[in-house]
Amino acid sequence: MPYVNIKITREGATAEQKARLIKGVTDLLVEVLDKNPATTVVVIDEVEMEHWGIGGLPVEKYREALRNASR
Amino acid sequence: MPYVNIKITREGATAEQKARLIKGVTDLLVEVLDKNPATTVVVIDEVEMEHWGIGGLPVEKYREALRNASR
Amino acid sequence: MPYVNIKITREGATAEQKARLIKGVTDLLVEVLDKNPATTVVVIDEVEMEHWGIGGLPVEKYREALRNASR
Amino acid sequence: MPYVNIKITREGATAEQKARLIKGVTDLLVEVLDKNPATTVVVIDEVEMEHWGIGGLPVEKYREALRNASR
Amino acid sequence: MPYVNIKITREGATAEQKARLIKGVTDLLVEVLDKNPATTVVVIDEVEMEHWGIGGLPVEKYREALRNASR
Amino acid sequence: MPYVNIKITREGATAEQKARLIKGVTDLLVEVLDKNPATTVVVIDEVEMEHWGIGGLPVEKYREALRNASR
Repeated sequence: MPYVNIKITREGATAEQKARLIKGVTDLLVEVLDKNPATTVVVIDEVEMEHWGIGGLPVEKYREALRNASR
Repeated sequence: MPYVNIKITREGATAEQKARLIKGVTDLLVEVLDKNPATTVVVIDEVEMEHWGIGGLPVEKYREALRNASR
Repeated sequence: MPYVNIKITREGATAEQKARLIKGVTDLLVEVLDKNPATTVVVIDEVEMEHWGIGGLPVEKYREALRNASR
Repeated sequence: MPYVNIKITREGATAEQKARLIKGVTDLLVEVLDKNPATTVVVIDEVEMEHWGIGGLPVEKYREALRNASR
Repeated sequence: MPYVNIKITREGATAEQKARLIKGVTDLLVEVLDKNPATTVVVIDEVEMEHWGIGGLPVEKYREALRNASR
Repeated sequence: MPYVNIKITREGATAEQKARLIKGVTDLLVEVLDKNPATTVVVIDEVEMEHWGIGGLPVEKYREALRNASR
C-alpha cells in the first residue's frame, strides 16, 4: 500500500529507465517491508530545469557556478 | 482552509469532469468538516502513463499483464 | 488508481469523519471518472495549527485578526 | 537540507521571477533557520488553470464569479 | 538532485528498515540515472492507519473486509 | 492562491521561527508575483531525523560521516 513519489529534473530519462525506477522501488518495498506490489503506487515527476532550485539558484545556473568555481 | 491534491493518470479527463471533482471534494469538506469553500484549495495533477507505476510496472504494462492473466 | 492527499488543520476531526472523507472522495472518483476503488489511495494529513499559514500568519493569528477586524 | 515546493497557477511567471522565488526562499531559510543553501531544494510547480480549484470552482470560473458579485 | 517521498502506513517499521529504504532508493537512482547521492533527498512519511484509505475504507476496515470476503 | 510546502528536519524550530517562514514566503510571493496573501497557503512539515535521508544515509549518520571525513 505504499505511495512513492520520485521527483527528478527533466534531463532525458527514457521510458526504460523510468520503468526500472518503478520496478526497483517496488522491489525494495517488498524486500524491506514485505509490501504488496499490487497496491504499491509509484509516481514520477519530471521537473523543468527552470523549476528546480538548489543553492539559491536554478539548477543550471548552480551547475555553471560549480564548474566555474572548479576551474 | 483544506488543501486537496488529486493525482490521476492522463487518460482524457475533460474540463467538465475536473470541475466536478473540484466541486465534489469541496462540497464533501463542507458537509463533513464544515470547511470554508473560499479557502479550500484543490489541485489536480494529470500524470503521464509512463510516470505511473503499480505492481512494479508502468501502468499500461500492468494492465496488459492483468488482461493476459485473465485470458 | 488515483492518489488523493487531503491536508486539514488538526482541529479534532473524528475517525468517523475521516472515514467519511475517504469514502466520499473514492465514491466521487468512481462516479466522475469510473475509477477502481480497490486501487484508489486516499491519505489524510492533519497539520498542526502552528504549521499552517494563510494571509502571511499562522492560522490562529489569522483568524484572530479576522475576528478583530470584524468588531 | 530543506525541501520547498511552491505551487502556482500557470499565468506567465517568467524565468527571472522563478529564479527570484528560488533565491528568496533559500535566503529566508538561511536567515531564519541557518540552513545550508547547498542542500536546500526548491521545486516550483506551475499548475494549469483548469487544474486549480477554489471555492468549489475552477479558478477562472471562481474569479469570474467574484467579478460578477462585485458589480 | 532527486527528491523522493515514501509514504507508508505506521505499522512498526524500524529505524534499520527506514535506513535500508533510504540507501536502496539512493542506490537505485545512482544505478539507473547516475544521480549524485550527496544531493539526493529521501523523506519517509509514516501515516496513521486512520489516515490511509483504500477501496473507500480506512485501511484497517478494508483489510477486515478482505479477510471476511476470503472466508 | 499559491500553495507552499516547506519540509524541514525536526530540530527545534520555534513557533516564532515558523511564523517568520510563513510571513517571509507570503511576502516573497506578493513581491515577486503580486499574489493575494489571503489565499496563499503555507504548510510546514517537520520531519523526524530518522525519516530524512541524504547521501544514502539517515541525516544524522550522514552528518557524522561528514564530520569524520573532515577530521
